[in-house]
Amino acid sequence: MTEMGVVYRTIERADRDVADRLAAFGAATVHEAMGRIGLMKPYMRPVYPGAEVSGTAVTVLVHPGDNWMMHVVAEQIKPGDIVVAAVTAECTDGYFGDLLATSFQARGARALVIDAGVRDVKTLREMGFPVWSKCISAKGTIKATPGSVNIPVVCAGALVTPGDVVVADDDGVVIVPRLKAAATLAAAEARAASEGAKREKLAAGVLGLDMYAMREPLAKAGLKYID
Amino acid sequence: MTEMGVVYRTIERADRDVADRLAAFGAATVHEAMGRIGLMKPYMRPVYPGAEVSGTAVTVLVHPGDNWMMHVVAEQIKPGDIVVAAVTAECTDGYFGDLLATSFQARGARALVIDAGVRDVKTLREMGFPVWSKCISAKGTIKATPGSVNIPVVCAGALVTPGDVVVADDDGVVIVPRLKAAATLAAAEARAASEGAKREKLAAGVLGLDMYAMREPLAKAGLKYID
Amino acid sequence: MTEMGVVYRTIERADRDVADRLAAFGAATVHEAMGRIGLMKPYMRPVYPGAEVSGTAVTVLVHPGDNWMMHVVAEQIKPGDIVVAAVTAECTDGYFGDLLATSFQARGARALVIDAGVRDVKTLREMGFPVWSKCISAKGTIKATPGSVNIPVVCAGALVTPGDVVVADDDGVVIVPRLKAAATLAAAEARAASEGAKREKLAAGVLGLDMYAMREPLAKAGLKYID
Amino acid sequence: MTEMGVVYRTIERADRDVADRLAAFGAATVHEAMGRIGLMKPYMRPVYPGAEVSGTAVTVLVHPGDNWMMHVVAEQIKPGDIVVAAVTAECTDGYFGDLLATSFQARGARALVIDAGVRDVKTLREMGFPVWSKCISAKGTIKATPGSVNIPVVCAGALVTPGDVVVADDDGVVIVPRLKAAATLAAAEARAASEGAKREKLAAGVLGLDMYAMREPLAKAGLKYID
Amino acid sequence: MTEMGVVYRTIERADRDVADRLAAFGAATVHEAMGRIGLMKPYMRPVYPGAEVSGTAVTVLVHPGDNWMMHVVAEQIKPGDIVVAAVTAECTDGYFGDLLATSFQARGARALVIDAGVRDVKTLREMGFPVWSKCISAKGTIKATPGSVNIPVVCAGALVTPGDVVVADDDGVVIVPRLKAAATLAAAEARAASEGAKREKLAAGVLGLDMYAMREPLAKAGLKYID
Amino acid sequence: MTEMGVVYRTIERADRDVADRLAAFGAATVHEAMGRIGLMKPYMRPVYPGAEVSGTAVTVLVHPGDNWMMHVVAEQIKPGDIVVAAVTAECTDGYFGDLLATSFQARGARALVIDAGVRDVKTLREMGFPVWSKCISAKGTIKATPGSVNIPVVCAGALVTPGDVVVADDDGVVIVPRLKAAATLAAAEARAASEGAKREKLAAGVLGLDMYAMREPLAKAGLKYID
Repeated sequence: MTEMGVVYRTIERADRDVADRLAAFGAATVHEAMGRIGLMKPYMRPVYPGAEVSGTAVTVLVHPGDNWMMHVVAEQIKPGDIVVAAVTAECTDGYFGDLLATSFQARGARALVIDAGVRDVKTLREMGFPVWSKCISAKGTIKATPGSVNIPVVCAGALVTPGDVVVADDDGVVIVPRLKAAATLAAAEARAASEGAKREKLAAGVLGLDMYAMREPLAKAGLKYID
Repeated sequence: MTEMGVVYRTIERADRDVADRLAAFGAATVHEAMGRIGLMKPYMRPVYPGAEVSGTAVTVLVHPGDNWMMHVVAEQIKPGDIVVAAVTAECTDGYFGDLLATSFQARGARALVIDAGVRDVKTLREMGFPVWSKCISAKGTIKATPGSVNIPVVCAGALVTPGDVVVADDDGVVIVPRLKAAATLAAAEARAASEGAKREKLAAGVLGLDMYAMREPLAKAGLKYID
Repeated sequence: MTEMGVVYRTIERADRDVADRLAAFGAATVHEAMGRIGLMKPYMRPVYPGAEVSGTAVTVLVHPGDNWMMHVVAEQIKPGDIVVAAVTAECTDGYFGDLLATSFQARGARALVIDAGVRDVKTLREMGFPVWSKCISAKGTIKATPGSVNIPVVCAGALVTPGDVVVADDDGVVIVPRLKAAATLAAAEARAASEGAKREKLAAGVLGLDMYAMREPLAKAGLKYID
Repeated sequence: MTEMGVVYRTIERADRDVADRLAAFGAATVHEAMGRIGLMKPYMRPVYPGAEVSGTAVTVLVHPGDNWMMHVVAEQIKPGDIVVAAVTAECTDGYFGDLLATSFQARGARALVIDAGVRDVKTLREMGFPVWSKCISAKGTIKATPGSVNIPVVCAGALVTPGDVVVADDDGVVIVPRLKAAATLAAAEARAASEGAKREKLAAGVLGLDMYAMREPLAKAGLKYID
Repeated sequence: MTEMGVVYRTIERADRDVADRLAAFGAATVHEAMGRIGLMKPYMRPVYPGAEVSGTAVTVLVHPGDNWMMHVVAEQIKPGDIVVAAVTAECTDGYFGDLLATSFQARGARALVIDAGVRDVKTLREMGFPVWSKCISAKGTIKATPGSVNIPVVCAGALVTPGDVVVADDDGVVIVPRLKAAATLAAAEARAASEGAKREKLAAGVLGLDMYAMREPLAKAGLKYID
Repeated sequence: MTEMGVVYRTIERADRDVADRLAAFGAATVHEAMGRIGLMKPYMRPVYPGAEVSGTAVTVLVHPGDNWMMHVVAEQIKPGDIVVAAVTAECTDGYFGDLLATSFQARGARALVIDAGVRDVKTLREMGFPVWSKCISAKGTIKATPGSVNIPVVCAGALVTPGDVVVADDDGVVIVPRLKAAATLAAAEARAASEGAKREKLAAGVLGLDMYAMREPLAKAGLKYID
């Protein structure tokens, strides 16, 4: 029920502590912990490698070639937020550069996730303001048509409701619904805890075939070995 | 009026000093300074990050899978030039590697912009010879059919006339027509000058909404706030 | 004659010494040495830059969204192998992460080449386990249907027979058939030997036009110079 | 808040009469009537041209390469429904062919909209069962992992809630939220009513410039005519 | 030297008779007749099959998501023209539908060539107004920013100068510069004349190998036959 | 073990009767009958809809932008063959048009499958000579470098050995290895025989859930119904 031309000033954010702690697990583990859902399309890539963040989503819906609402959303940012920008149509223009990044960072935003292009990427890297985007483009935008802020949006194939948790790293971007954040954190912790022991075994040469007891189900499924 | 099989030895290059000074402003600012035109498609990416160059265009039109003319264009390079290579059809082959880069660099070229693939990219990075290309591919090419040098070409969606200024960085590649180079430099300088003060304000937490006086036009355009 | 559900435990690997020495020449030179064939599609990219490897192919054919066979192939790895994974249909899921990489590395694998996605790429970089893939995706996979190990596969457009040599670097991935490995190494050595002298000449400003005696054939082909 | 492994048997469908009448206006008009939102990505194409349908959405979320849930959703179809199938990851496999189409048609479904591939397209055309899909592929699927039926899904970039109205024709697929269906129908009727008169004027040679009184705003925006 | 916000009312069109007669030869033959240049990218496809047109280009440069200038260009159409629309950035929106087609057709336009999307394609087919476009999309556009009319534009990789001849059919779109139109027509006629005899020979079973005397050059190039 | 510059005149074709009878089952059924393998990538599309063919493969490997070998392969065609053309690199050029089609048809070829572009598609439709290709392009090609005929090739992701059976229709292209052709025909016949009864049941409203006894395995896999 997308509304155009509205800014919701009051949103319910996921628990801050939960939102903060999810970053450490990374997109892949969190995506698994949620039951293999919530992932944006793999075309969403970091503009520079190495950043690992999580935070609460503030959403913005913009029009193709028009970044007016990026200024509107800046005012709604609270420390610990990550801005998620969706576009009403396919667009590769550069909606965001160093000036907006300076503003977002000053407001406490941790990152931007945008289903379009950004620019000034060298400066973004120097500033340490991470962005996940569809592409990089120097193409500028106009300011002509209002979109909306803090409505549910579809960004790169994922539904994002304001206040959801965003987890992003070199593997991609995953969205954790606010009401599932605590459970997801617990599941991610459990998953991560079990991975340490597994890693050690595998490093010692134990095979996954044995560690996960896969030989019998594989044989049952018809796998045959030939010498 | 594309001619095939011709090499123009005499071209009128943009003013050297103007061409040199445009690099400092970067593709995004120069593209804005020109009125948001002149940008190549965003699929044109640097083969390694961080390079920022500007120079005068020497153009070459090649055939798919045939890099013969890359040797012909090498002779037409003058110090401060950037070679712009267009292909008569879609191609991802690797037209250019470390040997040609050595030659281009020896002739004084600053970079290559090519609407196709290149190879030896690790060596290009070590040599410090930047390339913007459609892709990276080890695929070699033949030498069978003459194309042309220093005719106007369409490269990655942009018209490039020999002698135009090429500005390229991590944000992409922009072409400044020779006769507009001085005016574009002036506009870029003005733009950059005003950005410093803006950046400081935004860093201090001032919103673009206020700095750019957007609240009234947004309200006029129908934007509504809901608490 | 693709067979499903079989694991060939015995394959004939290319000569170890030959397989090892091909890495030094890189994908571009090896591809040329083979007569410009054997290259995978250019969408195959390293998940981090700079790695240069060669090794003997152990192949695995997997189903879309199902990485069960990645555990099966792990057991067939011998030191010096590179795993080549093909999928029976187009898929961008993340079939491989840090746990499997730990296992592969412990078994002696040098790299993975996969026509699909991988994840945990930051850890892969830290571990120094190079991967060439179609994409990066945090999307997890299931373990439901057996594929095959060590059958000939088509991966990213290249036919790979178990035991072939895989050569991969920043320029891409090339496959050298086992029986052509020694001849290809010899050709690559000859090619590389001649490149040193050429590079020096080009660096000194000699043109490829003269070094390769291209002026006459170009004129014959109709190339015209205009002042 | 995607749930996996659940089938909602009870959904609230949009008003039948409203849902039925929207087909006549087509995707473009309905999309405009909604305020230019609700459209799926333009890669969604009809497998044969000419079909124009509307109906109430029954949704299904499937896994890559697994069409098991297509059989589950069949049971939930009521006459006048259109099945909307989303996939948890990118997939081009053929999830649907003539047998499932026979079943869907027998249950009263009017069409399928699927963010993946379908097959038996010649038979679908002969049966008159329209499908909008990402691609056509003969690739078969497995039946291994449950997804969900009648949960909100994101399909080709659009959020679809069960019971929403789907409008599809040669121009694409648009989703009308259930609660906005009546208002959208009214807006579409108004829009269509005004188009008849406009078409006549334009056919008589009247220019849009005059009919829409654009000359003044264009001049104000700086447009200049040169003879 | 792209100018924004200008409409050139006076352009020099290619000779009408020449422009009209080129349609009969089709895009492939005309492209060959020009020396294999002038072709738009192959992603430009007709919205319905079978149309074969030629005419004089009237050009328009529009902004992403903004079709205001489509109304401006309508006034500049003269009978026998084909409108060529380029966009300043990548865009898939639907710039053109049945109302604009009615207007264009009333003004005497024969077709539209647009590097973006169009809609109402079923009606366009019924009207017999052919369009070559990058895609089909119901997405509507705004009217906010002036572009230009009758300046040289780059459309789908081809440079189009107002007054050039556009030739389009199921094989694609080719641009013939005004000053080369007569020579191209002559070359196309010669080419077509020779094709009739060739077709007959080939239909009678004569091989191209013999008809074109290729056996000797193939042998010289090293081709070997093995029984 | 790709060889360049060779033409194998003698190949072992699959049994003619078996090859002929596979067409009736179509690509989807044959692909299933083979165990869900052998399919070319779904980007391979017919240039006109409706054709359904099968035949024995004659292969040709061509270079990017060079169709010389298409004339060479013409001589190797025997009645009932289908030419399969692979390219050594990515290419969208138009390798094949009405003249070559006339020649191929005169030699008894039933179709062309090519991992590149073709042209004169309207004439191909009129001639009834079906082609499956990656794209349609008027771009012409040169005749400079020999490739090979009747060597194993990788075409659109599928390995094709000369003499294999090619089955193609609106759903795509599938390759049946020569030695598996008879068994595949038998499996396809069995599959088709069982489909008639299934279709009747489904048309009568029986659900796949019941016909295939899926309710229990679905419940076991955890599927839950909610009213």
